Amino acid sequence: MHMTPLDTSESPHAKLLTLPLVSTVLEGGFWFEKSSINRNVTLKHGYKEMAIAGNFNNLQLVFGQGSGQFRGLLFADSDLYKWLEAVSYELTNCYDLELNEMADTLIDLIEKAQGNDGYINSYWEVVEPGKRWTDLAHGHELYCAGHLIQAGIAHHRSTKDTRLLNIALRFADYINSEFNHSGLAASPGHPEIELALIELYRHTGKQKYLNLCRYFLDQRGTNSHHSDQFMPIYYQDHIPVRNARTMAGHAVRQLYLTSGMADLYLETGEKTLLDALERQWNDMATHHLFITGGVGSQHEGESFGTSYDLPNEKCYCETCAQIANIMWNWRMLLITGESKYADLIELIMFNGFISGVSVKGDKFFYENPLQNRKTSEGSERRSGERQHWYRCACCPPNIMRTISSINQYFATMTERGIQIHQFGEYSIKHSFETLGQVILKSQTEYPWNGTVLINVLETPAEEWALSFRNPGWCVKLSITINGQRLNGFTERDGYIHIDRSWEKGDEISVAMHMPTSFIQGHPNIEAIRGCVAIKRGPMVYCIEESDQIGNHDLAQICIDPFSKQIEETWHEDLLGGVVTIETDALAEESCAWEGLLYKPVSDVQHAKGDLFRLKAIPYYSWANRHPQTMRVWIPRSNLTN
Amino acid sequence: MHMTPLDTSESPHAKLLTLPLVSTVLEGGFWFEKSSINRNVTLKHGYKEMAIAGNFNNLQLVFGQGSGQFRGLLFADSDLYKWLEAVSYELTNCYDLELNEMADTLIDLIEKAQGNDGYINSYWEVVEPGKRWTDLAHGHELYCAGHLIQAGIAHHRSTKDTRLLNIALRFADYINSEFNHSGLAASPGHPEIELALIELYRHTGKQKYLNLCRYFLDQRGTNSHHSDQFMPIYYQDHIPVRNARTMAGHAVRQLYLTSGMADLYLETGEKTLLDALERQWNDMATHHLFITGGVGSQHEGESFGTSYDLPNEKCYCETCAQIANIMWNWRMLLITGESKYADLIELIMFNGFISGVSVKGDKFFYENPLQNRKTSEGSERRSGERQHWYRCACCPPNIMRTISSINQYFATMTERGIQIHQFGEYSIKHSFETLGQVILKSQTEYPWNGTVLINVLETPAEEWALSFRNPGWCVKLSITINGQRLNGFTERDGYIHIDRSWEKGDEISVAMHMPTSFIQGHPNIEAIRGCVAIKRGPMVYCIEESDQIGNHDLAQICIDPFSKQIEETWHEDLLGGVVTIETDALAEESCAWEGLLYKPVSDVQHAKGDLFRLKAIPYYSWANRHPQTMRVWIPRSNLTN
Repeated sequence: MHMTPLDTSESPHAKLLTLPLVSTVLEGGFWFEKSSINRNVTLKHGYKEMAIAGNFNNLQLVFGQGSGQFRGLLFADSDLYKWLEAVSYELTNCYDLELNEMADTLIDLIEKAQGNDGYINSYWEVVEPGKRWTDLAHGHELYCAGHLIQAGIAHHRSTKDTRLLNIALRFADYINSEFNHSGLAASPGHPEIELALIELYRHTGKQKYLNLCRYFLDQRGTNSHHSDQFMPIYYQDHIPVRNARTMAGHAVRQLYLTSGMADLYLETGEKTLLDALERQWNDMATHHLFITGGVGSQHEGESFGTSYDLPNEKCYCETCAQIANIMWNWRMLLITGESKYADLIELIMFNGFISGVSVKGDKFFYENPLQNRKTSEGSERRSGERQHWYRCACCPPNIMRTISSINQYFATMTERGIQIHQFGEYSIKHSFETLGQVILKSQTEYPWNGTVLINVLETPAEEWALSFRNPGWCVKLSITINGQRLNGFTERDGYIHIDRSWEKGDEISVAMHMPTSFIQGHPNIEAIRGCVAIKRGPMVYCIEESDQIGNHDLAQICIDPFSKQIEETWHEDLLGGVVTIETDALAEESCAWEGLLYKPVSDVQHAKGDLFRLKAIPYYSWANRHPQTMRVWIPRSNLTN
Repeated sequence: MHMTPLDTSESPHAKLLTLPLVSTVLEGGFWFEKSSINRNVTLKHGYKEMAIAGNFNNLQLVFGQGSGQFRGLLFADSDLYKWLEAVSYELTNCYDLELNEMADTLIDLIEKAQGNDGYINSYWEVVEPGKRWTDLAHGHELYCAGHLIQAGIAHHRSTKDTRLLNIALRFADYINSEFNHSGLAASPGHPEIELALIELYRHTGKQKYLNLCRYFLDQRGTNSHHSDQFMPIYYQDHIPVRNARTMAGHAVRQLYLTSGMADLYLETGEKTLLDALERQWNDMATHHLFITGGVGSQHEGESFGTSYDLPNEKCYCETCAQIANIMWNWRMLLITGESKYADLIELIMFNGFISGVSVKGDKFFYENPLQNRKTSEGSERRSGERQHWYRCACCPPNIMRTISSINQYFATMTERGIQIHQFGEYSIKHSFETLGQVILKSQTEYPWNGTVLINVLETPAEEWALSFRNPGWCVKLSITINGQRLNGFTERDGYIHIDRSWEKGDEISVAMHMPTSFIQGHPNIEAIRGCVAIKRGPMVYCIEESDQIGNHDLAQICIDPFSKQIEETWHEDLLGGVVTIETDALAEESCAWEGLLYKPVSDVQHAKGDLFRLKAIPYYSWANRHPQTMRVWIPRSNLTN
C-alpha cells in the first residue's frame, strides 16, 4: 500500500484517518504539473521500457509463449506491479483510455502466468523451477508478491475490476498456507509483503493477513543461522524489530520495514512497536538525514552509514529510499499527528524524491548525490546523467506510483476536522459522518510563494476544525479570515487549529514568510563543515554551470551567507518553471591550488578572486541539461564577513 | 629490501647512491630514542607475541613438532621474516645478545621447516598440502618468500652469517625454476617478491633474479581471466604496470608494487617505468594524501579511494601503507635527487608512520585515522585504543624493521658529495673512492627546533659538496659557516649545495625558521572544508581531551588561524618528550545542536561560547592515554576573524 483509507473501526490507534481515494483532487500548480507529466509521459515511457527490458516476455516464458531467456534481475516482476499500481491511481485521477488498455494487457499476462496453486514469479518459475522459497533472504519472491497485492488492491479500488485483486488474493492465500501453517521460518530479505498484507487485511477485513504480517515481523532477529555472504544487518535480520534502536543496513529495506511496523502498530496499538519506531526515527533525523531529505549515505550495501557520515558526492540517496521514507513518515503522521513527520514528507517530496525524475518525465536518477563534479568517479548508476531506464529498474515505477498518489498525502480527516498537511492547488471534498459535507478549495503558488488561500465552498452549519501545518521552515506566519487578521489561534503538535462555525464563502488566507536562507550543518558532519546551503521554504537549491554568467570553476567558489543582495526570480520557461535565487559569491583563482592538496592559511587568506553573482536553481531540477558540475553545499566566504 | 647499498656498477641510472650499512650512526635525539625503544622493548615484545600467536608453532607443525593446528592468517610466516630483518639491522646498530639468540632460535626453526626442494610456507604445507601456487592472487606464498629473502640478505649483511641467506637462496631458486621456466602465469597477489628479487640480484650479482622480477612485473594486467571475488584492480592486475596512470586498489599492495617498479628502473633505466611512476606519484600527491602523509582512505579493500576523498574518521591509513610509501619515495629520491620525495618521507616518518607505535613501544595502531570520537563507530582494527598485537599482524614487525633501519634514510653519497636528506643527531662516515675519508657530526633538537649544526671531523683536502635538503615546509632559512653568514649558495632540486674545500673543525649551522602554522586543504576535500590543522616544521598536531583545562567538547570547537597568542612549550615528561602548542579557541555550547542536523546560519552566527586556550600535541603521540576524542582538523572560527 500506500495512501489508502483506513477503516476507522479497525484502526483504533490512528489519530488521523486518510481521506477516501478521490476526495483530494489536484487542480493546478507544482504537483498538478508533475502528475500530468507522469500520466502523459512517464507511465507510457515506462510501459515501453519494460517491454524492451523483457519484463513482459519473462511472464510469457512462464506459460510457454515467450522467446529467449529470462532477462533482468530476479525481482523484475515487481516493476510491472508498481507500474500497475501507479496506473490504477491515475485512472482515478484522470481516466486515460490508453493506460487502461495497457493495464488490461498486462493483467492478462499476469493471469496466465499464475500457477494453479496461486504462485507467481517469473524468475523462480523460469530460471529456478522447483526451488520456491529456497532463498528467502535474497530471492525477492515475497517482495514481488507484496507489490502484486498492493497493485491488486489499488486496481480494485480504482476500477472496481476484481481480476488483479483476485490474482493477488490467490497468491496471498498460497503464501499464507506455506508460511503461517507449515512454519517455514522466514525473515523476508526485502520487506514489502508486510505492508501489502496489512493493506489486504484492511481491504478484506480478513484477520489472517494481519496475522501473517505479524508472523513475518516476529521472525526478524530470531534466526541465528545466516549462511550467506551478507551480514543479517543488511536486511535487518540482526535484531528483533521491537528492540531496534537505530536505522541500519540497506536503506530501502530498513524503511519498508519501519513502514510495515508502523502499519502493524496502526492496527494493533502495540506500544513496543511505536517505541522502537520513535527511537529509529530520532536516530535517522539526528544522524542520517541529508538536507534534501535523502537517506542512505553508503554505496556499499546501499546502506545507512555511521552517524554524521553524509558525503555530498559519494552518497547514495537512492530514489526508492526517499519514497520509502515518505511511506514511513506518512504512517508516523497518522499515528501521532505531529507535524515533524509532515515536514519531512514535504522536504523529501520537493527535493530528494522529485529529483529522481527529469523535468520532461522520461529520464531518471537511481542515486541522488548532493554534488557532481566533471571529474567525479561515480558508480555506473551515477554518471551525473539521467538514464532512460535501469537494468535494476526499481526506482522509475516507484516514482510513478508515488506521483500518481501524491494527492493522497495532502490532507486527513478526523470526526470533526480536516487537517491540511501539504500545501497546493487542490480541492477537498468530505462528508463527516454526523455533520455533513464539506468542500474546500486551496489555491497557491506554493512552493514558490508562501501564501495559501483556502475557500470554503460547502460546509455543515455546526462547528468543525480546520487544521493546517505550520511548517518547520517557517518562522513568521499570519492568517486572515475573510480579510480579518486572526490573532488568537491554537497551535498543537505543529498544527494551527481553527475550530469554528464555518460559512460557505469563507476565505482563509495563510501567509507564510518565505525568505531565502542559508543553512549550515551539525559540526560533526565532515562533508559540509564550513559550508552553507541555500534554501527557500521547503526547496533546497543547488548551483549548476549552465545558469552562470562567466566561466568560474564552481568547485572553487565561496558565498557570503550574510549577503543582502538576494534576488528571487520566477522563470516560466526554465526547467519546467522555477524560482531562481541570485546571491553574491567569490571565485578563487583556479590556479591557486594547482598541484597542491594543502597550504598555509596565510597564503590563501587574501587570495585573489572575482566577485560575481551566483545563480541557484532548485535541487530537484539539476541534471536536466548537459552533464556538468553541481553543488548543494558551498563554502562560506571568510572575506566578506 | 629497503635501505641497502646499491652497487654503483649495476645501477647506472641512480642519481644518488645509498651509503654503506653502518655509515650513518644515530647518536641522540628523536630517532635515537625511538630506536632504543624499538630495540629494548618492541622487538622483544614482538617475539613474545608471535610465540603466543602461534607463528613459531606453525613452522614446527611443518616438520612434525608443533601442537594443535595452524593458527593465524595464511601469511603468518611473513611476520617472522620481517621481525628477523628488523633484528638484523639492530644487530648492526647496537649488538644485543638476547636478540641475537632469539634470531638464531628462529632461524633454526625456519631451516627445519624448509622442504628439500627449497619451498617453505607453513600455511600451505600444513593446511593445504599439495596445493602450492594454486591461489597466486590471494595465497601470499610469493609475498612470504619475498620477506624471507629480504631477511636473509639483511641478516647476512649484518652478521656475515650465511644460514638465513642460504635458506632464502634455495627458495628463490626453487621459485625461479617454477615460474621462469615452466611459464606459470602469475601476477603475485601481494607484491613484495619483486623488491626482494632485485635486492638479491644486487647482493649476489646473479642476473636471473633481476629477470624473474621483470617477469612478475610484466605479467600484470595481461591475464584476462579473473575468477575470484575480488576485482583485479584490488591487487593491481587490471593494467600493465607501464600504462598505469593512477594509484588504485589496495594501498599497501599498490605501494609495494611501485617500489618494485622503481627498483627495476634503478637497475635497467627503462624510461616507460619511470614515466608511469611519476604519473602515479603525482596522482597520489595531488589527490590521495592525508596531511599526516597517510594514504589509503578506504576501509573497503583497504584501498585508495576516489580523488579528494580523504575522510578524517573513516580513513584507513594503514601503518604498512605509510611504510611502503617511505620505501617507494626513497627509491624515487635515489632516482631523481628531488627533495619532494625526501619531504614526503619526512612527513610520513614523523606523523602517519610513527603514530603506528605507542610511546612506550609495546602497543600498535593498524589504522591511523585523523579523528576519533568517543562515539565513533569504528572497525575492529580501530577502536581508538592501541592494541598489543593483531590477528593480522603485518604492521607491528613492519614498524620494527623500519625503525631499525631508519638511519639508512638520512644521507646518500655521490662521487664527490654527501647529501643530507633527513635531519637528526648522527654521525656520517664515508670514504670517497678517489678523495678519501670524511666524517661529519650532525647535532640538533630537530624536529622540535629547526637549527642543525654540522661539524666536519675529518675531510679530504680536495673540494667536495655538502648538500642538504631545504624542506618544503621551510619558508626562511639561514646558513653560517664557522660563524660567518653564507650569502651565496646553490639550490637545485630542493637541495642546498655547498661545494668547497672543507677543513677539519668547520662548523656549518643551518637555521630553519620553524613557526607554528595553520594549514588548510584543497576545496575539493569535503572532509576538511572550513577547517585548519596545526603544523610546526614537519610535525602535524592534534588535540586530545587530556591536555585541556576545562571540560569543553572538542567535537564542537573552532580555532582562530590568525591568533598571535601561540605558545610552543617543550615538555620533557609528556608523551616521551614533545613540544606542545597552545592557541586561542572557542567552544560552542554543546546544547546548541541538540537534536538538530541543520539550521539557518543566522541562528548560529552569534552563538554563545567560551573562549579558551587549546593545547595541541604532535599527532603521532595520540592515544597514549585513555580512549578519548582526538582531532587533527579543527573548524576555523568566523567569530574572531
